[in-house]
Amino acid sequence: MPIICPLPDLSKDVITLGHGGGGLLTHQLLHNGVFAELTNPYLDQQHDGASFELYGRTAFSTDSYVVDPLFFPGGDIGELAVNGTVNDLAMCGAMARYLSLSFIIEEGLSIAELQRVIQSIRRAATLAHVQIVTGDTKVVQRGKGDKLFINTSGIGSIHPRAEIHHRRIRPGDRLVLSGRLAAHGTAILSVRKGLEFETAVCSDTVALGATVSKLLDKWGTHIKFMRDPTRGGLASVLNEIAELTAYGYFIRQDSIPIDDQVEGACEMLGLDPLYVANEGIFLAVVDKEIAEEFAAMLQAESTGRHAAIIGEVGEEYRGKVVLRSRVGGRRIVGYLPGEQLPRIC
Amino acid sequence: MPIICPLPDLSKDVITLGHGGGGLLTHQLLHNGVFAELTNPYLDQQHDGASFELYGRTAFSTDSYVVDPLFFPGGDIGELAVNGTVNDLAMCGAMARYLSLSFIIEEGLSIAELQRVIQSIRRAATLAHVQIVTGDTKVVQRGKGDKLFINTSGIGSIHPRAEIHHRRIRPGDRLVLSGRLAAHGTAILSVRKGLEFETAVCSDTVALGATVSKLLDKWGTHIKFMRDPTRGGLASVLNEIAELTAYGYFIRQDSIPIDDQVEGACEMLGLDPLYVANEGIFLAVVDKEIAEEFAAMLQAESTGRHAAIIGEVGEEYRGKVVLRSRVGGRRIVGYLPGEQLPRIC
Repeated sequence: MPIICPLPDLSKDVITLGHGGGGLLTHQLLHNGVFAELTNPYLDQQHDGASFELYGRTAFSTDSYVVDPLFFPGGDIGELAVNGTVNDLAMCGAMARYLSLSFIIEEGLSIAELQRVIQSIRRAATLAHVQIVTGDTKVVQRGKGDKLFINTSGIGSIHPRAEIHHRRIRPGDRLVLSGRLAAHGTAILSVRKGLEFETAVCSDTVALGATVSKLLDKWGTHIKFMRDPTRGGLASVLNEIAELTAYGYFIRQDSIPIDDQVEGACEMLGLDPLYVANEGIFLAVVDKEIAEEFAAMLQAESTGRHAAIIGEVGEEYRGKVVLRSRVGGRRIVGYLPGEQLPRIC
Repeated sequence: MPIICPLPDLSKDVITLGHGGGGLLTHQLLHNGVFAELTNPYLDQQHDGASFELYGRTAFSTDSYVVDPLFFPGGDIGELAVNGTVNDLAMCGAMARYLSLSFIIEEGLSIAELQRVIQSIRRAATLAHVQIVTGDTKVVQRGKGDKLFINTSGIGSIHPRAEIHHRRIRPGDRLVLSGRLAAHGTAILSVRKGLEFETAVCSDTVALGATVSKLLDKWGTHIKFMRDPTRGGLASVLNEIAELTAYGYFIRQDSIPIDDQVEGACEMLGLDPLYVANEGIFLAVVDKEIAEEFAAMLQAESTGRHAAIIGEVGEEYRGKVVLRSRVGGRRIVGYLPGEQLPRIC
């Protein structure tokens, strides 16, 4: 009697175009993979959108995540997609409440990898106290995407004491950076280049909503502006604010917190850490009277241990960012003219 | 004297990775291409998110658009991305107010094409009375995307008289289809296959918010449920509701409005119009007492001229969709087992 060895049904293990067609496979993928993992009363309604009540000042933000690789030291695309949008809302002075989640999957992605990302999304959403309430899944042909792109959009309630607007920035305000620079981008590029360090260089991805909420409870309108220096790094954020406010932004290199190993890695990789992406820190522009206490309060938080006052806003060099280097020289820090690190977030 | 003929600066005409890097090129692209076209007080703030006041019942929806080709008879990816999300909100009984807009661009897309899409987005947003308030732009390497993917997420205010939920559906309720079936998917596939018809088969993409708002003004809670049969078509939507409500859904083939040419094209292309995507029609489940007047009211609208009562909800065949064919036979219409048309929306 011949031994019958059936071929495994590979169609069950990888995403096919049919998973994006709106038919049976889409239905099965959503029911077994997504709804089961991310269940909540909004999502469970399985309608074209989610419904809820909202009262008052609201923030709305969106980001698509195309990071390569999907999994990296310190995180993955799923965690990044939750934290990134939670943080964009936090920078508006808002606590994230509802997230949408949209996948663009390249045919051939393993369902196991997708599941790993979805589990990571669930964990990150739980930690950030945000609910995934509506979503979408599309599949594109092999070679027409790159494994997985994720869009999250988020709705948050703005803190009652928040008045975050670049128009409120004045000369004399202090620039506070909440943590060490350049960890995320350096971690991604290290993996891509196959570099290894004594201890792993890890992405700093973390949700900042709770920290920002505490700061707003205490400092309210003394906090003028916040922005997380993701893609393009601290230099790009400072240039954007400099241009919008037409003041000068002065930073001191020796005040900017950076991990020695990250700094060494940046040197090896030929990166200027000022332009490298971060995913777990933010820049705050605050009244000079509160700057010291504000930084001290941040230092007491796990997400702000390395916070530091890194500079100030001035009336000279209007529209420019000026760095005082460790040796005392001054130079203008411009926008990055080209591309330093593609697909970093 | 030699004739000097400088090479055109092609970097200015196509999207490069640098346009997604967060540096100078991103900045220029946004300022010259996006903010100028889509200007409004929310977007002009250029922050990580938009802020506004919201009071009451709110709907939230997201969709990523990966349609291929980007431009097709009757519309393009930009118009689709606005109307699609506006319509998802309308199906929740909500009028779209704020949209987010996120681009994932493949390196090499011509800036002229991107501009054409952005202009189309602006026009569609104006027609639908919705504002693009926040956005994101990413660029992926050549061969890692396909020209342009767009995500829009939307926030809408739910109509005070709306009570849209599948739990409200009861046996006896009537199924009303607001327009002719299968135009969008047939138009896309015709272009892909290079088919030509006597008159062009065009996508039906249109915003349905205003129509739905009028219907809700008049009929309120008599409207039990609405859903637009996009990807997967009418058959998939009916199967989903059948499963959620555990009633039987009975439709009559000779009542379903379809354009002769679209029906002919579907036959030629080997498509069952019940599974073909639509972008400008919706299915409403309504009280039987109002069904006739509801359909008549729709027929007076430009977006509902071909509206028809196509069937009803029953207690038999629970969880199933049953079609009575033109010759009188009955058959169960299931989920599409595989993929009929990839990248249709």
